[in-house]
Amino acid sequence: MNRGGVTILRLDHRPKRDVRVSTHLLLAARAFGASEAIYTGVRDESLEESIRKVVTDWGGSFKIKYVNSWRKAIKEWNGKVVHLTMYGLPVRNVTPEIRADPSNKLIVVGGAKVPSEVYNLAHWNVAVTSQPHSEVSALAVFLNELSDGSFLNIEFPDAKLRIVPQGKGKLVVVGD
Amino acid sequence: MNRGGVTILRLDHRPKRDVRVSTHLLLAARAFGASEAIYTGVRDESLEESIRKVVTDWGGSFKIKYVNSWRKAIKEWNGKVVHLTMYGLPVRNVTPEIRADPSNKLIVVGGAKVPSEVYNLAHWNVAVTSQPHSEVSALAVFLNELSDGSFLNIEFPDAKLRIVPQGKGKLVVVGD
Repeated sequence: MNRGGVTILRLDHRPKRDVRVSTHLLLAARAFGASEAIYTGVRDESLEESIRKVVTDWGGSFKIKYVNSWRKAIKEWNGKVVHLTMYGLPVRNVTPEIRADPSNKLIVVGGAKVPSEVYNLAHWNVAVTSQPHSEVSALAVFLNELSDGSFLNIEFPDAKLRIVPQGKGKLVVVGD
Repeated sequence: MNRGGVTILRLDHRPKRDVRVSTHLLLAARAFGASEAIYTGVRDESLEESIRKVVTDWGGSFKIKYVNSWRKAIKEWNGKVVHLTMYGLPVRNVTPEIRADPSNKLIVVGGAKVPSEVYNLAHWNVAVTSQPHSEVSALAVFLNELSDGSFLNIEFPDAKLRIVPQGKGKLVVVGD
């Protein structure tokens, strides 16, 4: 179990092109136990709104916030920095070391083009496979590996909606 | 280790709205060891082309194909059917049973609205958390759980491009 808190830094969000992928990324961050996300690029209030709506409905205290400078966010981070990149070291080789580190983690997830400075500022450059796929799948698998599956069972307090797992069909409990 | 082959069925692709999410989904399918994907909805040759380009560059024999009817694809499937849905049973509760089953698996991944018939036709309805996130993260985490991480190490033969994992920076080997 990772002992520090987890914050996601999403680089270079472009509202039109990225809105669905960024939404999926931030929801995956929340579902797999991150407490907060910050993003750079172009501010997008509808993205923020849709994430806050999910938090209102489905519970927990996940936060999203826009910042201007990724460099400042990384340099002023109080803890360690993990950069997810297909060029990095295999996830299962480095997660034991990351997991053993008690400090808060900033997980940097690229946009279209990641400046080489990010590779140098990161304490770990981590590859979730060295194949092209998606920042959404990379983040979710990384967080799941980091927690050894325990994020699959986290509780989200104060939810308006709660699913009761079923073999067939849907059961959603509504209300407090 | 899952002993059968894995094929993905992506439901209800809509070219404009879904192109990036479907691309990410299919690339995650390939990266985490599926051998093939079929999709329904609207045929999208640029989606197919971009996946085939990745296979040419990065190796392996992943295939993509459009079909008209999800019902026919599911009913005629020679093996077992897994439907990924936030309403299903927790992934870690059911993967041991799925993993022990030697037949080929069809993994059904929803589009906008999944007909209730899909829940009934599936041998397993599986939830990768009961929280909203993304079909991309759900599929990748499911395949990683199914293989107990061994998909993280698969090889892709005949690649033009191959990454050599690095602590900092990028190293790509080009050529045969």
